[in-house]
Amino acid sequence: MKKRNITLSYEEMPKQWYNILADIKLNPPIGRDGKPVGPDSLAPVFPMNLIEQEVSSQRWIDIPAEVLDIYSMWRATPLIRAYNLEKALGTPAKIYLKNESVSPAGSHKPNTAVAQAYYNKAFGIKKLVTETGAGQWGSALAFATSQFGLECKVFMVRISFDQKPHRKTLMQAWGAECIPSPSKLTNAGRQVLDKYPDTPGSLGIAISEAVEAAVSDQSGETRYSLGSVLNHVILHQTIIGLEAKKQMEKAGDYPDIVIGCAGGGSNFAGLAFPFVYDKMNGKKIEIYPVEPAACPSLTKAPFVYDHGDVAGYTPLLPMHSLGHAFIPPPIHAGGLRYHGMAPTVCQLVDEGIIEAKAVKQSEAFKAGVLWARTEGIVPAPETNHALAQVVAEAKKAKEEGKEKVILANFSGHGMLDLNAYEKYFSEELSDFALSDEEIEESEKIFKDYPKPQHLKSR
Amino acid sequence: MKKRNITLSYEEMPKQWYNILADIKLNPPIGRDGKPVGPDSLAPVFPMNLIEQEVSSQRWIDIPAEVLDIYSMWRATPLIRAYNLEKALGTPAKIYLKNESVSPAGSHKPNTAVAQAYYNKAFGIKKLVTETGAGQWGSALAFATSQFGLECKVFMVRISFDQKPHRKTLMQAWGAECIPSPSKLTNAGRQVLDKYPDTPGSLGIAISEAVEAAVSDQSGETRYSLGSVLNHVILHQTIIGLEAKKQMEKAGDYPDIVIGCAGGGSNFAGLAFPFVYDKMNGKKIEIYPVEPAACPSLTKAPFVYDHGDVAGYTPLLPMHSLGHAFIPPPIHAGGLRYHGMAPTVCQLVDEGIIEAKAVKQSEAFKAGVLWARTEGIVPAPETNHALAQVVAEAKKAKEEGKEKVILANFSGHGMLDLNAYEKYFSEELSDFALSDEEIEESEKIFKDYPKPQHLKSR
Repeated sequence: MKKRNITLSYEEMPKQWYNILADIKLNPPIGRDGKPVGPDSLAPVFPMNLIEQEVSSQRWIDIPAEVLDIYSMWRATPLIRAYNLEKALGTPAKIYLKNESVSPAGSHKPNTAVAQAYYNKAFGIKKLVTETGAGQWGSALAFATSQFGLECKVFMVRISFDQKPHRKTLMQAWGAECIPSPSKLTNAGRQVLDKYPDTPGSLGIAISEAVEAAVSDQSGETRYSLGSVLNHVILHQTIIGLEAKKQMEKAGDYPDIVIGCAGGGSNFAGLAFPFVYDKMNGKKIEIYPVEPAACPSLTKAPFVYDHGDVAGYTPLLPMHSLGHAFIPPPIHAGGLRYHGMAPTVCQLVDEGIIEAKAVKQSEAFKAGVLWARTEGIVPAPETNHALAQVVAEAKKAKEEGKEKVILANFSGHGMLDLNAYEKYFSEELSDFALSDEEIEESEKIFKDYPKPQHLKSR
Repeated sequence: MKKRNITLSYEEMPKQWYNILADIKLNPPIGRDGKPVGPDSLAPVFPMNLIEQEVSSQRWIDIPAEVLDIYSMWRATPLIRAYNLEKALGTPAKIYLKNESVSPAGSHKPNTAVAQAYYNKAFGIKKLVTETGAGQWGSALAFATSQFGLECKVFMVRISFDQKPHRKTLMQAWGAECIPSPSKLTNAGRQVLDKYPDTPGSLGIAISEAVEAAVSDQSGETRYSLGSVLNHVILHQTIIGLEAKKQMEKAGDYPDIVIGCAGGGSNFAGLAFPFVYDKMNGKKIEIYPVEPAACPSLTKAPFVYDHGDVAGYTPLLPMHSLGHAFIPPPIHAGGLRYHGMAPTVCQLVDEGIIEAKAVKQSEAFKAGVLWARTEGIVPAPETNHALAQVVAEAKKAKEEGKEKVILANFSGHGMLDLNAYEKYFSEELSDFALSDEEIEESEKIFKDYPKPQHLKSR
């Protein structure tokens, strides 16, 4: 009998996260003056225990027992051997997907949400504020804060708030408050609304609002929480890759190719970084972050210093960026609509250790429907981007007659994204391609900013 | 560390279903003339291998390898020890939930959908037709037929079709065709539309349409498929209880109380029947099917012979029934809006082996939100009915100071039912209570029908 699900017992679950900062060099976060931003200046935004994690270069970091306990509600997540997809493609490749859709929020996001809620609680924080685009991250933090008895407030990009009212309800089910952004609750929001009363909002604006709401709370018991990009977020996500490694070992395989979709980078990095560690130690692996062709930061944008948000509240981070004022086309993979990318992921691309790919929305959905009809679970639009690359690699393996082992991250299910599938089936789904002129235009915003160095980690 | 998820390896999964017909007596299905309906007259509706299963009294029936293989995509499902809920309630009770929400369709329904698709395929059938209320069953059959390369057509109750367009898209994602019912495709549908062009439809009408569409297909390669009520459907669902028994044993516990929500009866019976077997062999267990107070067939309606559908296409079945023309109030637990109930479940109620409970919609959602905030997963509205009874029993255990062991079926997740939660949070959720007069009125329809006997199985 085919073994479709490779599982790990609770005892076999990894008890430490992997910190890639032990193994790579990174340009520091800086201010507009070019001077490095120290931990203290971040203290109003994040609790000090998370700031310490953000800058730590310790390779292995213990997962607190309280976090492991909540992880065990759905972890270890299954590793799926996609026999049906392999058969449908007639490929000699072996295809494995790490199924992060089984969490209560339906994606990998709770891996860091739970850790962040724990560290904030441990630091004495009572309330977390965040932003969300399509709603996956806001849902995950709502779930995580409900587990620790923290309050939670989520600024949700208005267009998504209006188009996906169910996400608000989901957050409410976990006790969180969800507000459309831009709102009148913050200076950042009011400024945008004054100029553009009918704006659909953007992730960059919502980040500005959430940061402002957190730091302006006079109680001192409120902090901000971010769902991707930063080092500590990605650290927490490495549980995915560490589990996958043990599961691949159980299956008697090791990947030739590792794939994950990339918006801010945490889903890709969570699976890939433990394998990047192997690659830096001599293993031969191709590692592909996959982004939408409509928001091609890694594949088209330069490696620069840029802000993480529209209002420029965040420090400058070394990233591939389309410019912090860039508003990505309205593709359905809301989780991939971000102008920048995690500095750690960008550094690895800059060094040529990993290689970015971009796929079009229609290709992504085609792969997602093929997955649903073979392997059952309907994938999130973000996940479809990874699946499109999986299909491409499996077809390539067929052409080359090679039994490649492909491992990819199944970042979430699409139960709350069926409107996007409806559009796909009724052929109303557009492919957005950015022209070089559009990209050039959007990048003018950081032309006089300091520039990051091209570092070599080894 | 608390062990929250009790799992079973593939090897530990049960390889047989339990058939309760080996252990109970049942009034036979009959025609309006009172004469038993033989297997042959069902041949245009179901394939003969499933008809044989419907009337079999063999206690253990092997699960075909092909079915086990597809089950293994998500089975064995986890048994959750609900530590957080226990703590929130301050109860000495131990609470276990069998989590059927992890299937691709999000509920227990694929357990029988996969089996039915397999047996139909084995019999040479090319296409299945069915009906669906809220959409759970139609989705499950769409998934199952996609696995076996069968065509699938689903008649969906119009009001649900309009209110929940995402369900149609989900079925489409698996390649099935979904049509609002009543439709102009069948005599049954046209008759209703002629009289009531604006009717919201009902499950009884949709069943009539699906049966008619299946039997009138001249190719002989189309059959009908039902998602609950019948013996073979419930047989396939016993995998739930058989797994749960092994998992309880692993946890070192045995239930004092077994609970499941009941609409047509398959979710309740799937968990409970293996424990009914134990009870009939001397174990002391309380076993509760839980139905909505708005559709109280087991708790308020008499034990009679009635049709399963509005048009009277089906044989008369011995059930507690509110009358086949009864249209249940529009509660959100669409899967529990059925006038009748599985004959096997009704027989056990009639003999006093199990005891039916009814809960109001508002109580059900209150329990569902408590579950989400403690145990994470947002439950389906149907599941909330079981959870309300779990909470009631846990509180009772607290009052009595007894360490009762409670086991319940978590039938599905609520990711596609968030509109119902939205109504709950905005206090727009109505409790429908049927008056005795309304129930009496609806029951007139079968007053001159043959009556079932009160049988004693032991």
